[in-house]
Amino acid sequence: MADTIVAEPISEEQTVRVDLGARSYDIEIGRGLMQAAGSQIAAVLPGSRLAVVADETVAGLHLETFTDSLSAAGLDYTVLTVPAGESTKCFSQFERLCDEVLDARLERGDAVVALGGGVVGDLTGFVASAVRRGMAFVQVPTTLLAQVDSSVGGKTGINARHGKNLIGAFYQPALVLADTAVLDTLPLRDFRAGYAEVAKYGLLGDAEFFAWLEQNWQAVFAGGPERDEAVARSCQAKADIVAADEFEAGKRALLNLGHTFGHALEAAVSYETTRLVHGEGVSIGMMLAHEFSQRLGLISDETVSRVHKHLTDVGLPVRIQEIPGQLPKADTFMDIIAQDKKVSRGALTFVLTRGIGEAFVEKGVDPAVVSDFLKEKLEA
Amino acid sequence: MADTIVAEPISEEQTVRVDLGARSYDIEIGRGLMQAAGSQIAAVLPGSRLAVVADETVAGLHLETFTDSLSAAGLDYTVLTVPAGESTKCFSQFERLCDEVLDARLERGDAVVALGGGVVGDLTGFVASAVRRGMAFVQVPTTLLAQVDSSVGGKTGINARHGKNLIGAFYQPALVLADTAVLDTLPLRDFRAGYAEVAKYGLLGDAEFFAWLEQNWQAVFAGGPERDEAVARSCQAKADIVAADEFEAGKRALLNLGHTFGHALEAAVSYETTRLVHGEGVSIGMMLAHEFSQRLGLISDETVSRVHKHLTDVGLPVRIQEIPGQLPKADTFMDIIAQDKKVSRGALTFVLTRGIGEAFVEKGVDPAVVSDFLKEKLEA
Repeated sequence: MADTIVAEPISEEQTVRVDLGARSYDIEIGRGLMQAAGSQIAAVLPGSRLAVVADETVAGLHLETFTDSLSAAGLDYTVLTVPAGESTKCFSQFERLCDEVLDARLERGDAVVALGGGVVGDLTGFVASAVRRGMAFVQVPTTLLAQVDSSVGGKTGINARHGKNLIGAFYQPALVLADTAVLDTLPLRDFRAGYAEVAKYGLLGDAEFFAWLEQNWQAVFAGGPERDEAVARSCQAKADIVAADEFEAGKRALLNLGHTFGHALEAAVSYETTRLVHGEGVSIGMMLAHEFSQRLGLISDETVSRVHKHLTDVGLPVRIQEIPGQLPKADTFMDIIAQDKKVSRGALTFVLTRGIGEAFVEKGVDPAVVSDFLKEKLEA
Repeated sequence: MADTIVAEPISEEQTVRVDLGARSYDIEIGRGLMQAAGSQIAAVLPGSRLAVVADETVAGLHLETFTDSLSAAGLDYTVLTVPAGESTKCFSQFERLCDEVLDARLERGDAVVALGGGVVGDLTGFVASAVRRGMAFVQVPTTLLAQVDSSVGGKTGINARHGKNLIGAFYQPALVLADTAVLDTLPLRDFRAGYAEVAKYGLLGDAEFFAWLEQNWQAVFAGGPERDEAVARSCQAKADIVAADEFEAGKRALLNLGHTFGHALEAAVSYETTRLVHGEGVSIGMMLAHEFSQRLGLISDETVSRVHKHLTDVGLPVRIQEIPGQLPKADTFMDIIAQDKKVSRGALTFVLTRGIGEAFVEKGVDPAVVSDFLKEKLEA
């Protein structure tokens, strides 16, 4: 990526503990961690045999390094590959992987490893939760989005005919290994999209972190120690929220800052990633959530401008109109929002904010006000 | 069934609490409970909409009574039917039901209800665990086996190419309603098979209960208050064990008394229920577990005779030779036992006993000793 700052090949490791009682686990973060993955896994799951699930793209880039480290640690493993892309999160791949993990004769104490981005992590986690009613599970996320979001918190799942992530389990890994050096191989667009979730942690609950990001985002992109720091602080932020609300009964909804609008935008383009990827939807969605909060008199113009400046500085989209191609009308967006799984008994729930780092969940938002706001934004 | 004792149409309800912290729930037991199911469900899950899953056989017998009670309680519901039989516990029915629950537009707080035996309960529970990563779940077991075993403890799942119950989740219901009057419609063979699990609770940990069963089993079969008592004590026994070991890390293995041999017998006849149903396999398996314990010098001939007498009194099979048709040789049984999911890292684990009500888990059983024992039993 950016080549003005040259990152060290191997950095000191940081550990974030996700505190969930008997289901607690560590997230290890650092450059070059992949080379030591085998010994890390062997330390947590001594004697386990592994089924490693990777998509074809990630397998081409990182599988050899990863499996070399497994062999070096004396771990026995089987590799299972799946096609790259969102359509892999389906019932038929779920069934196929369950059968293949059983083919490999893994026992209950053995482990299923997800090596890849969110798609592989979500699918593999659900497989791990279901085979023998629960195998050990290890996440080795290879995208920024997966490192700071999908591999923390235990949400696993596949997509259904009715929508994304509608079938799955809350299932915690035994270990997460986030090698920040592998992010050097990510396309810039994907890095940026993951960064939207990093910025989200500042915006929802940590003004100081957001200010730090405003100062240090270039180094985060470049791969310096600031990248490790940003990943670790993001994981810690999510871990704290998940520890308070593992099964999404309350506070965890804060993590949806920008996501109600964001999901609606993704659905509106039929999840065509050439037009919009998840993190871009979140970026536009966070901007809309701040503008909507400002409309409700909750925050100032200055706060809105500050969010706008940072997201555009890093190259993220902030306006619906930045999405290429035709978009539906406000009524269609409202239908999509009403179907969103975060809707509870007909009322609209949004994450709003009272300032940088001061997001809150509002369950009684009037649909008419949202509709008017969206109409205006679509015509802007 | 037996008509020497005439049972009252509606009995006083008994409640067994399954104590699992935030996942605790009640099992309600009594004659005629089905007629009050709607109000019971509404009390635990106020305002929930329901998807009721039943197989075609149970739907013909009990669906109208059940849905009438839902309507009377003002509950909104959708009925989803599946074919009767073990082959319904498969990936394709799992996918179909997940989609249909979503079709019904149930939200996360809404409930999926299993009305039926173990097949419907296991499949439906896994669906409930997976849709939206966890819907509320209610069990209305209509067989004795389901009332005393599969609907207590949260094991849900489907079968895989590699074996039974290999894919699933530990997922607790919000409520279990066991109407002991519906057992009057069970074929005697199925009632007996369920009774094998009732006797198991006495044999594994409660000598006093086993002695009570020796005295009262006729009334249990006839449907008197003794039936409610037997179901309640069985549920309590399982609930106590599950509360101590929800995720089957230790003590819960006691519930497998008779099951390692029993599963091997079921597998040996390719799960052909015309030859052997699960409870019959458990009955023969329990007899073998006692004979094997006696062989190891753990129990006396008298104890073995007492178990033999009670199981034969109620009409359950106790010898491998009672299974109709050709059976495999001891080597094949040993292969099946070695593949059993209760095998840990190659060592053979068996539930053995030191007397009536004194079962224990032995992890280091020598396969050669088991093999010799089985050879002798097959030649006997």
